Amino acid sequence: MTEKIALTPATHTTPPAKFSHGVKKGNILQVAGQVGFLPAVEGQAPTPAGPTLREQTLQTLANVQAILEEGGASWDDAMMIRVYLTDVDHFAEMNEIYNAYFEEQGLKEAPSARTTVYVGLPKGLLIEIDALAVLS
Amino acid sequence: MTEKIALTPATHTTPPAKFSHGVKKGNILQVAGQVGFLPAVEGQAPTPAGPTLREQTLQTLANVQAILEEGGASWDDAMMIRVYLTDVDHFAEMNEIYNAYFEEQGLKEAPSARTTVYVGLPKGLLIEIDALAVLS
Amino acid sequence: MTEKIALTPATHTTPPAKFSHGVKKGNILQVAGQVGFLPAVEGQAPTPAGPTLREQTLQTLANVQAILEEGGASWDDAMMIRVYLTDVDHFAEMNEIYNAYFEEQGLKEAPSARTTVYVGLPKGLLIEIDALAVLS
Repeated sequence: MTEKIALTPATHTTPPAKFSHGVKKGNILQVAGQVGFLPAVEGQAPTPAGPTLREQTLQTLANVQAILEEGGASWDDAMMIRVYLTDVDHFAEMNEIYNAYFEEQGLKEAPSARTTVYVGLPKGLLIEIDALAVLS
Repeated sequence: MTEKIALTPATHTTPPAKFSHGVKKGNILQVAGQVGFLPAVEGQAPTPAGPTLREQTLQTLANVQAILEEGGASWDDAMMIRVYLTDVDHFAEMNEIYNAYFEEQGLKEAPSARTTVYVGLPKGLLIEIDALAVLS
Repeated sequence: MTEKIALTPATHTTPPAKFSHGVKKGNILQVAGQVGFLPAVEGQAPTPAGPTLREQTLQTLANVQAILEEGGASWDDAMMIRVYLTDVDHFAEMNEIYNAYFEEQGLKEAPSARTTVYVGLPKGLLIEIDALAVLS
């Protein structure tokens, strides 16, 4: 029996429902949809970074990364990154931010696959990202 | 060679195309997008539970669960649950239903990760859910 | 240590950002979101097949297949196919094309699970597809 472990970085706000920010079972790690919430402050409602797409995107990527690391993984283990944007016009800017971010990460392996689609998100949120990782 | 097995609960309507309601290969189980269709009745078109979000959500969760169980899995094995809603205003109510449902399930392990986004769905459908599970 | 390998068919245009068209690690293969771009021509911007849904869908499926095959997999290994359409009215026609396509593939195993949702896509694109495969 392989145990499923919840991954809950200390910086993260409590999920708004009965789900985990991330789970790991064997060598599979799944990160739940992350948004650009700033590190949790006790007694305060979750607040997104912002208001720019850049700020939200970088905070969202940091939130995904924190969960990967909580599970002993890194971006090098990411197999699939799903990017949800609210506006097709944000695609080029998101790609710029995404590229610069991953350049800085100094990936040692092939970059993750990715799908980007345009959906609705709760008011104030411009981007949501989730990720599937396979650990070595 | 590990075989890929189709998971087709007796209660399920025939998929509208050449896909399986669920598949299992080795310890990986994938549930296709489920909607709130009531148990299939021969000779009748698929009919969603309804008309409320509550009825559709509970039926959708039951449909996902039937496929997990057909593959010898349970909600405890779920790593990722993807929730597609059509209306941001349904988020709070869906969470309430979702939480109560999973309280009742008596999960023994960490709850699954989850992503919720807002998309279009065929007329009459308010929610769609799919799931990835890793068996122990 | 299991290596993560980028899957880059020769026919594919360069991704618009730092991601791989597909990655494989151990027995898990993930195909990034593919659209109906025709085989890459050096010095030309990516051009979608079209303008019909049929042409784009078949090209998109061919692009997914090329990545599966680059990783030594086939449609028989596909566990989950995610179809993103822009218009609910395209569902029936997409299913017809999808069914005929997979009939021709002569699948030896259970067809993949599938989720179809309706989202926004960049101008001119009617369909996007990604896939998760588990190799035998």
